[in-house]
Amino acid sequence: MTVRAAVAGASGYAGGELLRLLLAHPGVEIGALTGNSNAGQRLGALQPHLLPLADRVLEPTTAEALAGHDVVFLALPHGQSAAVAEQLGPDVLVVDMGADFRLKDAADWERFYGSPHAGTWPYGLPELPGGRAALEGSKRIAVPGCYPTAVSLALFPAYAAGLAEAEAVIVAASGTSGAGKTPKPHLLGSEVMGSMSPYGVGGGHRHTPEMIQNLSAVAGGRISVSFTPTLAPMPRGILATCSAKAGPGATAESVRAAYEKAFADEPFVHLLPEGQWPATASVHGSNAVQLQVAYDEAAGRIIAISAIDNLTKGTAGGAVQSMNIALGLDETTGLTTIGVAP
Amino acid sequence: MTVRAAVAGASGYAGGELLRLLLAHPGVEIGALTGNSNAGQRLGALQPHLLPLADRVLEPTTAEALAGHDVVFLALPHGQSAAVAEQLGPDVLVVDMGADFRLKDAADWERFYGSPHAGTWPYGLPELPGGRAALEGSKRIAVPGCYPTAVSLALFPAYAAGLAEAEAVIVAASGTSGAGKTPKPHLLGSEVMGSMSPYGVGGGHRHTPEMIQNLSAVAGGRISVSFTPTLAPMPRGILATCSAKAGPGATAESVRAAYEKAFADEPFVHLLPEGQWPATASVHGSNAVQLQVAYDEAAGRIIAISAIDNLTKGTAGGAVQSMNIALGLDETTGLTTIGVAP
Amino acid sequence: MTVRAAVAGASGYAGGELLRLLLAHPGVEIGALTGNSNAGQRLGALQPHLLPLADRVLEPTTAEALAGHDVVFLALPHGQSAAVAEQLGPDVLVVDMGADFRLKDAADWERFYGSPHAGTWPYGLPELPGGRAALEGSKRIAVPGCYPTAVSLALFPAYAAGLAEAEAVIVAASGTSGAGKTPKPHLLGSEVMGSMSPYGVGGGHRHTPEMIQNLSAVAGGRISVSFTPTLAPMPRGILATCSAKAGPGATAESVRAAYEKAFADEPFVHLLPEGQWPATASVHGSNAVQLQVAYDEAAGRIIAISAIDNLTKGTAGGAVQSMNIALGLDETTGLTTIGVAP
Amino acid sequence: MTVRAAVAGASGYAGGELLRLLLAHPGVEIGALTGNSNAGQRLGALQPHLLPLADRVLEPTTAEALAGHDVVFLALPHGQSAAVAEQLGPDVLVVDMGADFRLKDAADWERFYGSPHAGTWPYGLPELPGGRAALEGSKRIAVPGCYPTAVSLALFPAYAAGLAEAEAVIVAASGTSGAGKTPKPHLLGSEVMGSMSPYGVGGGHRHTPEMIQNLSAVAGGRISVSFTPTLAPMPRGILATCSAKAGPGATAESVRAAYEKAFADEPFVHLLPEGQWPATASVHGSNAVQLQVAYDEAAGRIIAISAIDNLTKGTAGGAVQSMNIALGLDETTGLTTIGVAP
Repeated sequence: MTVRAAVAGASGYAGGELLRLLLAHPGVEIGALTGNSNAGQRLGALQPHLLPLADRVLEPTTAEALAGHDVVFLALPHGQSAAVAEQLGPDVLVVDMGADFRLKDAADWERFYGSPHAGTWPYGLPELPGGRAALEGSKRIAVPGCYPTAVSLALFPAYAAGLAEAEAVIVAASGTSGAGKTPKPHLLGSEVMGSMSPYGVGGGHRHTPEMIQNLSAVAGGRISVSFTPTLAPMPRGILATCSAKAGPGATAESVRAAYEKAFADEPFVHLLPEGQWPATASVHGSNAVQLQVAYDEAAGRIIAISAIDNLTKGTAGGAVQSMNIALGLDETTGLTTIGVAP
Repeated sequence: MTVRAAVAGASGYAGGELLRLLLAHPGVEIGALTGNSNAGQRLGALQPHLLPLADRVLEPTTAEALAGHDVVFLALPHGQSAAVAEQLGPDVLVVDMGADFRLKDAADWERFYGSPHAGTWPYGLPELPGGRAALEGSKRIAVPGCYPTAVSLALFPAYAAGLAEAEAVIVAASGTSGAGKTPKPHLLGSEVMGSMSPYGVGGGHRHTPEMIQNLSAVAGGRISVSFTPTLAPMPRGILATCSAKAGPGATAESVRAAYEKAFADEPFVHLLPEGQWPATASVHGSNAVQLQVAYDEAAGRIIAISAIDNLTKGTAGGAVQSMNIALGLDETTGLTTIGVAP
Repeated sequence: MTVRAAVAGASGYAGGELLRLLLAHPGVEIGALTGNSNAGQRLGALQPHLLPLADRVLEPTTAEALAGHDVVFLALPHGQSAAVAEQLGPDVLVVDMGADFRLKDAADWERFYGSPHAGTWPYGLPELPGGRAALEGSKRIAVPGCYPTAVSLALFPAYAAGLAEAEAVIVAASGTSGAGKTPKPHLLGSEVMGSMSPYGVGGGHRHTPEMIQNLSAVAGGRISVSFTPTLAPMPRGILATCSAKAGPGATAESVRAAYEKAFADEPFVHLLPEGQWPATASVHGSNAVQLQVAYDEAAGRIIAISAIDNLTKGTAGGAVQSMNIALGLDETTGLTTIGVAP
Repeated sequence: MTVRAAVAGASGYAGGELLRLLLAHPGVEIGALTGNSNAGQRLGALQPHLLPLADRVLEPTTAEALAGHDVVFLALPHGQSAAVAEQLGPDVLVVDMGADFRLKDAADWERFYGSPHAGTWPYGLPELPGGRAALEGSKRIAVPGCYPTAVSLALFPAYAAGLAEAEAVIVAASGTSGAGKTPKPHLLGSEVMGSMSPYGVGGGHRHTPEMIQNLSAVAGGRISVSFTPTLAPMPRGILATCSAKAGPGATAESVRAAYEKAFADEPFVHLLPEGQWPATASVHGSNAVQLQVAYDEAAGRIIAISAIDNLTKGTAGGAVQSMNIALGLDETTGLTTIGVAP
């Protein structure tokens, strides 16, 4: 079986990473590639690393261009997916790499995104409890945010096992590609090289309600999240340092056991041997999640740290993994756990 | 007045940064420079950025070499300072840039450093309550660790004002120079560029008891600290993201007021205007601390973030600042709040 | 057909990259992995990005460990390959990723490497004139150096077409992985980040005679080479800026035509559209060579610039490509022209 | 004596570096700061590393704002300086950090800059033969381009001594700040980190005629220049690898002697001991030029390599050095040869 896939938003970082993965996917034929401001340009000028597609020319993002595909990936600015998705018909698998359909709570959406809520689609994080079932056979997928992917996977086992209290504290460092390809002064190489800086501090980052949604669902009660994202001098990668106060029953052994159980059969999530900690370089370009957990007895906290590639597992790889499940393919098709390092 | 200063350990990063600052200090004449494995080498080969000292040759670190100076800076591996300091006499100002004399609790020292406790010297963080008084006229100074400098300054105002609960959670990113100049595989450029990774997770980092000591002294009761350091792909800089649960009385206004009060007269600590967050690039090579604080009402936490240069304010600049106080000089002599950016 | 391959020197950067590629090669089964100082360690601790091999343990590099394989890759320090290769028998395909068998001139070898010349094996750069024929069916392959790969491909078309004079001037920037994984002070992240520096200036770099050998063979006469390598603050990649005085007959058109002809049918070498210049990021992790050529009429020179990944096309990818040819497989098996960017 | 200095273009990288240096200059009082698109903003938001000026607000660049100063620095886009300078009067020292007044040949200017030639001012590279005399007492200074500074200093001694032939080949790597602060896609951190790329290849870079002008003046005959600039993944620094065919009389000794003689009394140019090569990190933030020269006997070429900070000696430091000479101050006032490393 080969499906024909279109990519709306092929000139950005998420679109480029998706194309890199689809080129290696044995069950996908790449169809239309669209863009807006870049329509009419050769992909070779926009994504020079994608040599096999160098001579493809971007079309404008229209219903006509996207018609006639089995799968349509949307890598569009927030708020633009609903209008496009409506025109695609119920039998097309639509995979939204934006935020539009991630949140269940309309008030959360409106508070953080400032526009009317478009709805909620099945959530593309198969490793969460019940995650795969929600995706099987689905024709709509909301790909998670990059930070919520790293954070939810790092913390949910502690909440699933009832070992952590309800207030999570998260500090995550992200590579600059997470901020996109639109040129802005603070994203210049001159500004980011040699510098670490926080942003969206104090609860303002849009990924916060998504983390709360995921962790609360697992915990069976509201989890509060203090989330501080930081921009790191690297193009890719997220290192999420997540902690919560240990609850009754938490010991080094019970915590370890909870994480071993959660990820025992996961193809992409790798709990490192005790004493080894993850590094983002190890997952560069891969769909793997490398993580480790510790119990700090003196401070009474569980600390779980995950490393992902924000563009792969955090965006495009997660999208392909969920597409595979929705289409009934082997979940790992076209994806790798091998990073490009050093 | 000109004092004559010797530097023991002039070939490492702390020693090099100290020499950079002393060369610009109008009241200091640079005397003996010593090293161990590098004794006999030209400084130009070891510290090629220090052109005015290029033809100086390192001597072995001996009591003879260090004799006859007004000030002796020790930039030695942990555990070696006491033996050297004993030989220097009570009238020489000895500034220890290592850890040996920072901790008051001998049991803490032995648990984290694994050797007998050498004692406790006046602590070189003038911005802490009572900090300056402890240094005035002193002949012995223990320069704080780089992380404790960044963290203590970020959090003490909240504790001094009684606005934060007793459990602090800290995640800090450090440039690689904090790990020193001894070649190790994980510190290779190939390994660190493009990568973020944690270390010493779960309470194991030696700077943890120093943070607890500082914050507890201010709070008037034991503060627990969960501290996770991470290695960032940059040569210098620390970004410390510090938070604590807000206590009764904490509001956005009361928190801001506590920080404004704490740093109103500080020459090196700069509380940024509301809405602006610190970046390590802005303090590159400077003795400034740039910081910001927020109150996250939804999560009920105070988040304070500081940026310092780990080698300047975090080590050698802090040493010079404290030396100035001990000698009765203007505290800012030879130091700058201007960073080298971009 | 599946061949069984051993890798001697699996803990270094060349060995790690080779394993990354072999894991994706449908015709190769990975056999013994050996190391010397790292024998007995888990590969997961040494190469944490190679998750599928995390539990493999390195054996010592002995004839016994390497016996029973169809292909043996040697990623050993210079001068060690001959002794190992002798023990492997004539029917085993031995692919040497070191320098030992690259040079034809024993005097050159001895002058640059300071040890007796071990011999000359078929040279693994298929894109050179006659390159493929030399490899077909061969049981011994000398993988080119990373710089000679980038430089020879950039300049040989000009010499093959008789458009360039006999003195080439080359300045190349390399990522730090080219310097290997053995910790040395000048390779620390603290030293290389934010810094460019040259080394081996003035004709001293060992890759110089290899470039001369390649270009002279194509030109049919001795080409002199002035080669200056520089260390760049990035983990991977080579950008080789190569120029030569234009000879009679050189025009913008004739130069372009010579390069188009040389690479028209090459699967891995991509001459960019006029006006677009290569960037090392575009070939990160790929076996592609992206290059461009210009004729500077005012200076009377041809300038050809190539970008490769030093570990992929420059080492391990080149090795796999040549192995494919030697084994009669499709030359591109297991290799990609798609880079991991940004 | 204290002079009052205005800076037109204070929000860019050149302006920011100039302010950093002027803040440390004992003979300068900082007057008006102007910008165009950023007029009305606090400098603290635009240049957060310049803490002592954080509360200064940018004015629009008008004759009124710039009036009443002893010195006016122009850090404006090319082509805008003449109109501003005309309004300042002949007694004001005007230091143009743009290109407008560097070239003597109007045809060269028009070919490379595409606008009418504004004239030629005394050239601010004191180390060139006759360089200081041209600046003493001058009221107009054209600050050299960053690349021409690095290249001219690296090569002029060989031409002054008649040891090099007339065709120079130059490949230089620059940090990204040389490309300015205006956001463009190819300057994003995501694009430049981990990547080396050339630009302006084949004689197109605007600094080429300036190099030809400088070297030809020293040689007493036209020197042709093949110049290839490359963008390196670092915020600051230029490493210029410059070579020319050795002429009659060139030997290792005669070449070394020529360079020793050229720089024997120079306060900022440091010829390294034989065998030591420059690194850009060593001159980070300093006005020093570190350089080395070699004679490659086999290739018959002289290779001279210089490292400068493009923003300091390459722009703002060179401007201050020339201002000092013009004002009759000690040439080194307010400048340092000490880099901020690592």
